[in-house]
Amino acid sequence: MKVGIIGATGYGGNELYRLLSKHPHVKECILYTSSEAEKAYRDSYPHLTGISGESLTAINTAGIDSEVDVLFMASPPGAAAELLPEICMEKVKVIDLSGDLRLRDSKTYESWYKRKAADPAITRKAVYGLSELNKEAIRGASVISNPGCFPTAAILGLAPAVSGELIDESSIIIDAKTGVSGAGRKPGAGVHYAETNENFKIYKVNEHQHIPEIEQALLEMNSAVKPLTFQTHLVPMTRGIMTTIYAGAKSGSLKEWHDLYKEFYKDCYFVRVRPVGEFPSTKEVYGSNYCDIGIAFDERTGRITVVSVIDNLMKGAAGQAVQNFNLMNGFDETAGLEMAPLYP
Amino acid sequence: MKVGIIGATGYGGNELYRLLSKHPHVKECILYTSSEAEKAYRDSYPHLTGISGESLTAINTAGIDSEVDVLFMASPPGAAAELLPEICMEKVKVIDLSGDLRLRDSKTYESWYKRKAADPAITRKAVYGLSELNKEAIRGASVISNPGCFPTAAILGLAPAVSGELIDESSIIIDAKTGVSGAGRKPGAGVHYAETNENFKIYKVNEHQHIPEIEQALLEMNSAVKPLTFQTHLVPMTRGIMTTIYAGAKSGSLKEWHDLYKEFYKDCYFVRVRPVGEFPSTKEVYGSNYCDIGIAFDERTGRITVVSVIDNLMKGAAGQAVQNFNLMNGFDETAGLEMAPLYP
Amino acid sequence: MKVGIIGATGYGGNELYRLLSKHPHVKECILYTSSEAEKAYRDSYPHLTGISGESLTAINTAGIDSEVDVLFMASPPGAAAELLPEICMEKVKVIDLSGDLRLRDSKTYESWYKRKAADPAITRKAVYGLSELNKEAIRGASVISNPGCFPTAAILGLAPAVSGELIDESSIIIDAKTGVSGAGRKPGAGVHYAETNENFKIYKVNEHQHIPEIEQALLEMNSAVKPLTFQTHLVPMTRGIMTTIYAGAKSGSLKEWHDLYKEFYKDCYFVRVRPVGEFPSTKEVYGSNYCDIGIAFDERTGRITVVSVIDNLMKGAAGQAVQNFNLMNGFDETAGLEMAPLYP
Amino acid sequence: MKVGIIGATGYGGNELYRLLSKHPHVKECILYTSSEAEKAYRDSYPHLTGISGESLTAINTAGIDSEVDVLFMASPPGAAAELLPEICMEKVKVIDLSGDLRLRDSKTYESWYKRKAADPAITRKAVYGLSELNKEAIRGASVISNPGCFPTAAILGLAPAVSGELIDESSIIIDAKTGVSGAGRKPGAGVHYAETNENFKIYKVNEHQHIPEIEQALLEMNSAVKPLTFQTHLVPMTRGIMTTIYAGAKSGSLKEWHDLYKEFYKDCYFVRVRPVGEFPSTKEVYGSNYCDIGIAFDERTGRITVVSVIDNLMKGAAGQAVQNFNLMNGFDETAGLEMAPLYP
Repeated sequence: MKVGIIGATGYGGNELYRLLSKHPHVKECILYTSSEAEKAYRDSYPHLTGISGESLTAINTAGIDSEVDVLFMASPPGAAAELLPEICMEKVKVIDLSGDLRLRDSKTYESWYKRKAADPAITRKAVYGLSELNKEAIRGASVISNPGCFPTAAILGLAPAVSGELIDESSIIIDAKTGVSGAGRKPGAGVHYAETNENFKIYKVNEHQHIPEIEQALLEMNSAVKPLTFQTHLVPMTRGIMTTIYAGAKSGSLKEWHDLYKEFYKDCYFVRVRPVGEFPSTKEVYGSNYCDIGIAFDERTGRITVVSVIDNLMKGAAGQAVQNFNLMNGFDETAGLEMAPLYP
Repeated sequence: MKVGIIGATGYGGNELYRLLSKHPHVKECILYTSSEAEKAYRDSYPHLTGISGESLTAINTAGIDSEVDVLFMASPPGAAAELLPEICMEKVKVIDLSGDLRLRDSKTYESWYKRKAADPAITRKAVYGLSELNKEAIRGASVISNPGCFPTAAILGLAPAVSGELIDESSIIIDAKTGVSGAGRKPGAGVHYAETNENFKIYKVNEHQHIPEIEQALLEMNSAVKPLTFQTHLVPMTRGIMTTIYAGAKSGSLKEWHDLYKEFYKDCYFVRVRPVGEFPSTKEVYGSNYCDIGIAFDERTGRITVVSVIDNLMKGAAGQAVQNFNLMNGFDETAGLEMAPLYP
Repeated sequence: MKVGIIGATGYGGNELYRLLSKHPHVKECILYTSSEAEKAYRDSYPHLTGISGESLTAINTAGIDSEVDVLFMASPPGAAAELLPEICMEKVKVIDLSGDLRLRDSKTYESWYKRKAADPAITRKAVYGLSELNKEAIRGASVISNPGCFPTAAILGLAPAVSGELIDESSIIIDAKTGVSGAGRKPGAGVHYAETNENFKIYKVNEHQHIPEIEQALLEMNSAVKPLTFQTHLVPMTRGIMTTIYAGAKSGSLKEWHDLYKEFYKDCYFVRVRPVGEFPSTKEVYGSNYCDIGIAFDERTGRITVVSVIDNLMKGAAGQAVQNFNLMNGFDETAGLEMAPLYP
Repeated sequence: MKVGIIGATGYGGNELYRLLSKHPHVKECILYTSSEAEKAYRDSYPHLTGISGESLTAINTAGIDSEVDVLFMASPPGAAAELLPEICMEKVKVIDLSGDLRLRDSKTYESWYKRKAADPAITRKAVYGLSELNKEAIRGASVISNPGCFPTAAILGLAPAVSGELIDESSIIIDAKTGVSGAGRKPGAGVHYAETNENFKIYKVNEHQHIPEIEQALLEMNSAVKPLTFQTHLVPMTRGIMTTIYAGAKSGSLKEWHDLYKEFYKDCYFVRVRPVGEFPSTKEVYGSNYCDIGIAFDERTGRITVVSVIDNLMKGAAGQAVQNFNLMNGFDETAGLEMAPLYP
């Protein structure tokens, strides 16, 4: 199978290359660029010396649909919205990691992203690729809208509780923490080492564009869900996301809550619900496609606290994209994704 | 003035030494030890070469009250409870940083700390040293119970809202993050570099001993406060605490909330309420005694989010202890604490 | 093939498990312990939840040689020296990562390691497993002494120059830097996060036990090599070693030097000599078995500077052990080691 | 005394502000900018909230010499060379931190810096401000060329040995390591957190512009000094420099070498020669103006290894500039610089 990656020089694109270049069902990767055609890919990423022989290829929208079988778009916001209308989606399957297709409502998109929404005809066609929750639809999809990194962690952490209607739907608070690679490879004050190291920051307070994505997904499980609070913090580390989720429990005991989560994810290879009393840390999924979950119930307050962790570049981006690629093509869901976390 | 430090070889004790050895009203520091008497202090801390000429002195409880004017106790849990009954508190003022005297109710102490409580006669005498909120009582105190690092950040972040009865008293959730120095100098798996670096962890879920301390302080401001949720996370950095605080607002606009906080802290040198839309990061108070606060109100959810940051070894421990020392002795509140944060 | 790991709960053992549990020619891993028999391995390493079902097994030296085909020893210093005499090495191949068998001369061992040397009969049998330089001997070996992390980087960096007799043999200086995982999993002041983070230290000045190991290997290539200078530094990072090597060049130009290195390693999959003017950083081999080398020649001083980097837990320990395992058993040298570095 | 800072928004300028705003002999700081006039300084550095009330002032070269008594130039390369000819140096003392005036030979400057040298008339007037080595000249100077960060550490580490003619003058090798703040505040790929964290890099191999500065200073002590090797590495930390210095000893024992260093620096408050067998780490001078030195002699090789550490923003830049400011103005050399290192 031939695959293409648009945006290969970004961190998401590079992580896709790491996975796809060793994938058992991928024969060739074409690496597309908007600006650096002909440049050797390893010049952007010297760690690929001796691994990548590819040069970057100019994007040719007219022909791209016959050059590859599946196209991964790890491009900056707006690029997918612009390119997709020119690509024939009967000929090529598309997995978009960029966020352009995630919100079904154009007005919501425009109000949170502060940019023009994609053509609703394309957005409607896109299946939301949260692999564990949407498996059947993903299998039949021609376009996948790959979830955001925070929404992946938050929605997996909330799905059993929300779909079971077991929490107060107006009480959801998500305190999210991410490593710096989530901000992308482009230099800027916000990712300067000296401003980020030995520092802990909050950012985009009440304004993160992942808020409507999380709410949209939860509302599909339970229409009683109310606007939720979601705050994001920058941790001095490269990879990893933790979401600490708080909600009022309608009832229950710790054992019931834990059983619910175990049962809900019992067939999900990549979701590991931890034993009662154990909580995951981000390094425990480093470099892997796992989402690990810990759950606590506090009798003093009647609240549950759910902790979910992922590697933002893996389950939060490229790993989940490959998982969806596997599902769409009838491969084993774990193909090319069997690596253990790198620890320590 | 002569001061003594019990527990000088720990991080809190060392930070006290940094402050007191340059303090304009301190002539001499005696550094007490339970086990390393006669050892040169700089052998424990080579960064003090040429600065500290002191040797460690064995604790002599019989005479300690006549050796020093003020005694700082930065000892491990239980030591203050054991030593204080032997010390004559008419002769020496005591500032205890250890937590032994913070909870007024012995049963609460014993249930959270899992150890025997101090003699209630001593605990009753101890004034809770949250300098900004308790200034008058501190001025007249002979024993100070210096607040915990997390409670300092959390209580300062909540005081205007809670004392003003402006939030739903049953809705308080505090998501706290700390640097690793908060765990002390003793080696252990939890502070091993390779397990901590490039990692983000949650710990003591629903079980942190600072929970009753925060609740006790808030209940004194507002007796309607209900049990709250407080979770703690370990950040891969050495110094710094951020608490992200969530609560349902009974009413208000962002401007009103911000005005409330500005007004509440208008005479507090060490509390810096940031402009509307600006939120502090931990490095912005690094090495200083400031507590910086940012406040947000979200109309979608009706919740406020308060962000407060401190340096856990300064305002969260030694810095606040020196601030209390200044108040108790009638010195300028900022004496020896005027340093700007070290940035970057 | 059945393999055993002694010392599986250390970092080296855990990295061996990561590689061997996914190795195409390994059917079963037995994880031996000296003290925690019956405990589930994942309890030591929660990142292996759902990956490792193994429990730790007590070491039974009498029978171990019939339980496994190959035994990896990732045990603390001294354990291999003690256990190996009881194991029948006709029945089981042994790869020792501990250092016990690396020095051929017992007196040298005892003077640098400050402990009793292993039985010379065993040491003599052990082949030094620097895979690239010793390939034929490794193929026929029954016992491998796996090189130290620093020696691997230093010897690969020096081999072309030293064996070609192209540098002043009395001029070699190696300035080495390592991440903290090299110190092992045992807690201690030297690996405390707060003492290590945002800090750069030198340690074991002129006393590192890897000095005689490096000299022994270089002397085998070139008997004119004189005692060399080797200093080691601790970098605030988890994985990675860089050695910066200095030596006086007898002659040459940058191009000749670079050609020499390219030619010397032209058949070595895991050694990547970088283009002229490019130098590797440690993250560019993170999690992989590569050793990357950059070379500079300075006309002003007549010196070469060679930079070599490895992942200390991979090419510096477990990765090279598996490479040797492949060679000993006639497998493809890269089996189970094809992963690209994890970047960023 | 009124002082001015050109380049206050950079890290060097900000560190100058930290020191000068609390300096006992400074009444006012004027902060000059080339592009952001009228902006509040705290908007660039929110950690200065409540500390700095200053706004940035446009540079007015015509009048600057009457606005301030001493002018600190922490501007980018080239700015001092351009501005100084317009400033009347009879009226204002100048301390230039930029490097423009450090090399006495224009051709050498132009060949290493790849830019036009300053007017030799100005360069000639500038006294090289390595405070410990040049005290008398600094006291009488009107223009100081403040040393580079690496040269400060390297020259202090080498001065006793080189001026005593006790090492082989052709054998000097300096392996230098720096934290990331040395690269300045401007964003770029080289300071991106995700490319720098958990990474160790070498850079500017054989090409660092501090090479001729070090050689020039050493040649003034000992005209037999030959071209030396100096390589620079980037450490994943914010502040701190270590130079590990290697040289062949003409003779001596460890004790003699150590005595030499102790004697040489016996009157230097900011140089702390560590006891025999003890070596400094960078954190042990964090935030302070100390240069700490450890010395080793190896009988096996006849080489000395000298380790020197500084905080690159303090003794390597702003701290030493203030030390020179004190000397030029007849203040106590330590005025405003008495702070202990911040540890941990």
